[in-house]
Amino acid sequence: MSMANRSMVTIDDLSNVEIEGLFSLADEMSQSMDKQTTVCQGRIMASLFFEPSTRTRLSFEAAMNRLGGRVISAVDIGATSLAKGESIADMARVAGSYADIIVIRHPWEGAARVVADYAGVPVINAGDGGHEHPTQTLCDLYTIKKERQTIKGLRIALSGDLKYGRTIHSLSYALARFGATILFHPCPGLEMPEHVLRKLTTRYKGKLKRYEALGSVSKKGLFPIDAVYMTPSSPHQLTMIPDISMQIELEKEVDALYVTRLQRERQAKMGEQGANEDYVVVNKELLKKKKFERTLVMHPLPRVDELAYEVDGDPRSMYFKQAARGVPVRMALLALLLGAKQVAASGEDDYSFVRQVDYPIYRRDSGLRCSNPKCVTNQESEIRYIKPAFKIVNLEPLILNCIYCEHELYPEYIATTDWHEGKLENKKYHSAGSNWTRRIKPDKLVIFDSEKEAQARGFKPSSYVIRNTES
Amino acid sequence: MSMANRSMVTIDDLSNVEIEGLFSLADEMSQSMDKQTTVCQGRIMASLFFEPSTRTRLSFEAAMNRLGGRVISAVDIGATSLAKGESIADMARVAGSYADIIVIRHPWEGAARVVADYAGVPVINAGDGGHEHPTQTLCDLYTIKKERQTIKGLRIALSGDLKYGRTIHSLSYALARFGATILFHPCPGLEMPEHVLRKLTTRYKGKLKRYEALGSVSKKGLFPIDAVYMTPSSPHQLTMIPDISMQIELEKEVDALYVTRLQRERQAKMGEQGANEDYVVVNKELLKKKKFERTLVMHPLPRVDELAYEVDGDPRSMYFKQAARGVPVRMALLALLLGAKQVAASGEDDYSFVRQVDYPIYRRDSGLRCSNPKCVTNQESEIRYIKPAFKIVNLEPLILNCIYCEHELYPEYIATTDWHEGKLENKKYHSAGSNWTRRIKPDKLVIFDSEKEAQARGFKPSSYVIRNTES
Amino acid sequence: MSMANRSMVTIDDLSNVEIEGLFSLADEMSQSMDKQTTVCQGRIMASLFFEPSTRTRLSFEAAMNRLGGRVISAVDIGATSLAKGESIADMARVAGSYADIIVIRHPWEGAARVVADYAGVPVINAGDGGHEHPTQTLCDLYTIKKERQTIKGLRIALSGDLKYGRTIHSLSYALARFGATILFHPCPGLEMPEHVLRKLTTRYKGKLKRYEALGSVSKKGLFPIDAVYMTPSSPHQLTMIPDISMQIELEKEVDALYVTRLQRERQAKMGEQGANEDYVVVNKELLKKKKFERTLVMHPLPRVDELAYEVDGDPRSMYFKQAARGVPVRMALLALLLGAKQVAASGEDDYSFVRQVDYPIYRRDSGLRCSNPKCVTNQESEIRYIKPAFKIVNLEPLILNCIYCEHELYPEYIATTDWHEGKLENKKYHSAGSNWTRRIKPDKLVIFDSEKEAQARGFKPSSYVIRNTES
Repeated sequence: MSMANRSMVTIDDLSNVEIEGLFSLADEMSQSMDKQTTVCQGRIMASLFFEPSTRTRLSFEAAMNRLGGRVISAVDIGATSLAKGESIADMARVAGSYADIIVIRHPWEGAARVVADYAGVPVINAGDGGHEHPTQTLCDLYTIKKERQTIKGLRIALSGDLKYGRTIHSLSYALARFGATILFHPCPGLEMPEHVLRKLTTRYKGKLKRYEALGSVSKKGLFPIDAVYMTPSSPHQLTMIPDISMQIELEKEVDALYVTRLQRERQAKMGEQGANEDYVVVNKELLKKKKFERTLVMHPLPRVDELAYEVDGDPRSMYFKQAARGVPVRMALLALLLGAKQVAASGEDDYSFVRQVDYPIYRRDSGLRCSNPKCVTNQESEIRYIKPAFKIVNLEPLILNCIYCEHELYPEYIATTDWHEGKLENKKYHSAGSNWTRRIKPDKLVIFDSEKEAQARGFKPSSYVIRNTES
Repeated sequence: MSMANRSMVTIDDLSNVEIEGLFSLADEMSQSMDKQTTVCQGRIMASLFFEPSTRTRLSFEAAMNRLGGRVISAVDIGATSLAKGESIADMARVAGSYADIIVIRHPWEGAARVVADYAGVPVINAGDGGHEHPTQTLCDLYTIKKERQTIKGLRIALSGDLKYGRTIHSLSYALARFGATILFHPCPGLEMPEHVLRKLTTRYKGKLKRYEALGSVSKKGLFPIDAVYMTPSSPHQLTMIPDISMQIELEKEVDALYVTRLQRERQAKMGEQGANEDYVVVNKELLKKKKFERTLVMHPLPRVDELAYEVDGDPRSMYFKQAARGVPVRMALLALLLGAKQVAASGEDDYSFVRQVDYPIYRRDSGLRCSNPKCVTNQESEIRYIKPAFKIVNLEPLILNCIYCEHELYPEYIATTDWHEGKLENKKYHSAGSNWTRRIKPDKLVIFDSEKEAQARGFKPSSYVIRNTES
Repeated sequence: MSMANRSMVTIDDLSNVEIEGLFSLADEMSQSMDKQTTVCQGRIMASLFFEPSTRTRLSFEAAMNRLGGRVISAVDIGATSLAKGESIADMARVAGSYADIIVIRHPWEGAARVVADYAGVPVINAGDGGHEHPTQTLCDLYTIKKERQTIKGLRIALSGDLKYGRTIHSLSYALARFGATILFHPCPGLEMPEHVLRKLTTRYKGKLKRYEALGSVSKKGLFPIDAVYMTPSSPHQLTMIPDISMQIELEKEVDALYVTRLQRERQAKMGEQGANEDYVVVNKELLKKKKFERTLVMHPLPRVDELAYEVDGDPRSMYFKQAARGVPVRMALLALLLGAKQVAASGEDDYSFVRQVDYPIYRRDSGLRCSNPKCVTNQESEIRYIKPAFKIVNLEPLILNCIYCEHELYPEYIATTDWHEGKLENKKYHSAGSNWTRRIKPDKLVIFDSEKEAQARGFKPSSYVIRNTES
């Protein structure tokens, strides 16, 4: 099964079967590393890093070189082309005419999608702001798969900064797709964002349980750190474990403990030391707990203080293996997308853990913009040519998903294209919260950011406009 | 015909026959890209960029990799070696002992010439300040040639910033050499510099016509944009069209419209928004004009606002093709200068559009310096070893051309080496504007920047020294 | 004799026989450069430069490419990973899992040792702060060897900044090991540090002679520059010449004159222009002296003013050859450490110029730290995992050598682990200068930075604590 000429912007761009095929190829390649030197001979990979990331870049470049391919590389180019006002679409087209495949890291969320749209060659997202970093997810999954043979049914605890860590969002989707149970153990104030949870439950059929603090005895500092999926100071923790007894759940083994770094840049904003003090620390003491007896200790690196050096020699520590396995995984991915290798067609895709949804796309010119200031669609140089577009993922309440950065929008005003045909007095807009939302067919829907915007386009308020303040 | 071991500092370093041979090779290579991977095997290209230029660098590096060669690359090295006070001659010698060919970009004008003088290996100028960027010119010419089969007799309009855009100067020389008619349409205040025009008329036999504004009806904003070679607000526009009726000329088709970017850094200096408002914008509307019916729309990229995204899909748009063709053109150039390929000897060079001139060289130590502050000869680290040298391109008035940056000098005082032999009272200097200039043989000429300089070297003013103020 | 899987952190990591074997290999490779392109095929070198050094990096990268190997490169990465708080040990492990060999430059002294300890692949030190830069030394030695066939018995003058120039320290050790006579001619105020001299005399059996100024006639500016190993304004100059008559010594030929750059950054600190005025300048005039008739003029480059451009064409000038020879020397080193080549086993190592000393190692947790603020062991990100360790190189006075940066320590307080066993009243500390130092066996020694530290660990002052002030 050929994967040639495809791009990988999010982890969802590969099916489960494709991911497993990629893992088989990575196995094969890592077992005969010195025989791969002609696989991508004559092919060029452009690594375009608009943000520094030595580790990820070197991993990709090592992978392409191991395949016998060549690399052209632009590091920290933010100051160069952008200063001249160039759009990333133009950059993508030009780079796509030099190279056979592009690896892109960019601070703007959704940027990799734009590059993939314009490059004309396969594009791999090596991180686009807080959006996705799908090859990190592949390395994580690959490590779990290699150590445990399967992912289905495993209990994986995610710990630390679950709010900003982009790797953790992708990973949670992927784990859900493969049928793992996920236990969330965020640092207080750094819980999984609601939109990630929503995607987990709607698209990936997850059953979420939110536990409140376990009674008054559990105070800050008293509650044992091994209660991985809950802490008293963060009441709205979530777990995707099935609806069974909490007590039993607490005793069960954890298959993998995935810790993320406390980002210093976030910490500063969150107010001094609070976050730091409460932050998880994985050390020898913690790993003595019975439930961690066979636990894989995972971390995307670089680490700061959340992972003690004393556990580096512990056989459960997987983080350096995770990094090392990035090379064969990326080799496999590059070879597949370049069409130099194919995945063995190993049967049908298993969608039992994924709900296939084709959301309607909203692409109308009604002034509606993504509300994420870091979204690629909101950047001065990109506004000239990118037309915003959204998936309508929910009607009551109305929720849109930017197709570039996947940020959620909750617009307040709607109208229909049908009603005002002929009769101008019918050209009215309504509150998105009113019944009208359900009554307008998605393909007739017009959505506005504000009443001002609606009026600017010739619509008048209907009686279904609910105002917060009626002064 | 071998071109091995030669450098390319300016577009004039290649003859017309060589350029056409290079284009044939580029054609051949682009048709069998995957068969070129052994052409430069075992050879190393050093790309030394003292100024950021992702696009040009990646294009060269892609080219060398496609040829099977290797690349060592130093980006934005300004802060490194220079900080240690190293001269570019030393850098060139060392890099030349590591690599088989050097590609250099440097902010100092004439720097590439110095590198070529010292490296001991072929050197390609990838842009030296405002001086030259000859491989961009090759890409431009190649695109025109490929689309129109010939360059001779075509009508090419150059539009936008004709003053600072270095690519446009090289291109105009090259177009003239190949016998094209050039129409200048500068943004007001950004006209072609006089020295470029002089070179076009003297060396390339161009006939220039300067049109004044077309009467009083043509006011700013009223005159149609399709009058490519003239605008009312810039009275001294130039065209190299032959001396025929202006009216007929206005109706004729344009074969290519070459637009340059308005450089924001220049814009700021030019005074707020004025420049921007008057700047050409190529959009669907403009391209509807009859004269642009079959026009190639060209741009060196990156673009800002002068080229609307709406024309990207238009078959006349050539700018992404221009960029893409940079790879085979640079492959051909690298292979030729490395001696890995030869150009087919396709007959005599056609000099019908070029006047061959061997200007006498002035290299005397009379304190004379290039007046261009960006010239490589005026930099602190280079003064220690570079001896300034000039071409004497004109006698009345006396005009010199720096052999490094090609900047023009108009020195004011002269003397002769002959006169003072024996008789010290004859050791006198004269105004360059006086008759003496004609009477002194170039090889006896002594030239001074100032009277002070002349006197410091023991010369006294003759009666042929004209003083502006006789206080 | 295989050198596979070894690292080169200091010049001492290679024996004399290995160095000579490496030179033979470099000879062989430079004579058939185009036949080396498969030697390291399929192997990857990571060049990690935490400090800019275009020349050294490009030399290594050219070498690896000439061998057919591949390069992944991270330049000026200081701002990237470090900003995230990553330790160099983590970086080393990850890079070691991507590449087959690592070349590292880092501003922290001793950093290359840490990288070699953790990488799991061979590591080459390309400069770690003021500590070592051993491949530069190899290039220097190789040039001398190639031009003079031997190093033993040659008279080599080292001139300029002998204090801060790291290349000069390594070179002096290597010259001593190969039996050369070294003449020191430092710029005043930039003499060889005492610890280098101590190593030269103790480990390399050098005999040092310190000359005072040659009487009162020798004033600043009067003394001839050709007295390479002495200047009046620096009374404590040193020479490693044997104990023969000074007068005869002055007349003898110098085989090589190695000049170092005056580092501008140092100059500023040293107080205005003084240093600059006194700095050696090698020019035509100097080289006319009889003793320099056949002298090799050497310089590590880049130069500033200490080496006049007028001598570039002189056949004695070796500095560009030194740079050029960096490529075959580094090719040989890479091929050897990667196990792609072996050195011919050419007999026993000659230790006649080296005293083999196995100093006892001090690695006790007594709060003792290296006193060098630039030492890798004192950096915030490294303190978490590096345990300081020292060689005890002398007892009276007590001198320690940091095993990372080789900085010398002179701790003031000591104790023994033996004495307080059982009896707490015996748990006392003494002055390092007292007799106790000799009486405590090195493996029982406890060493403190300060009395405070000793007391904090439960020790009380003995009567052998000498206090400077008894107020």
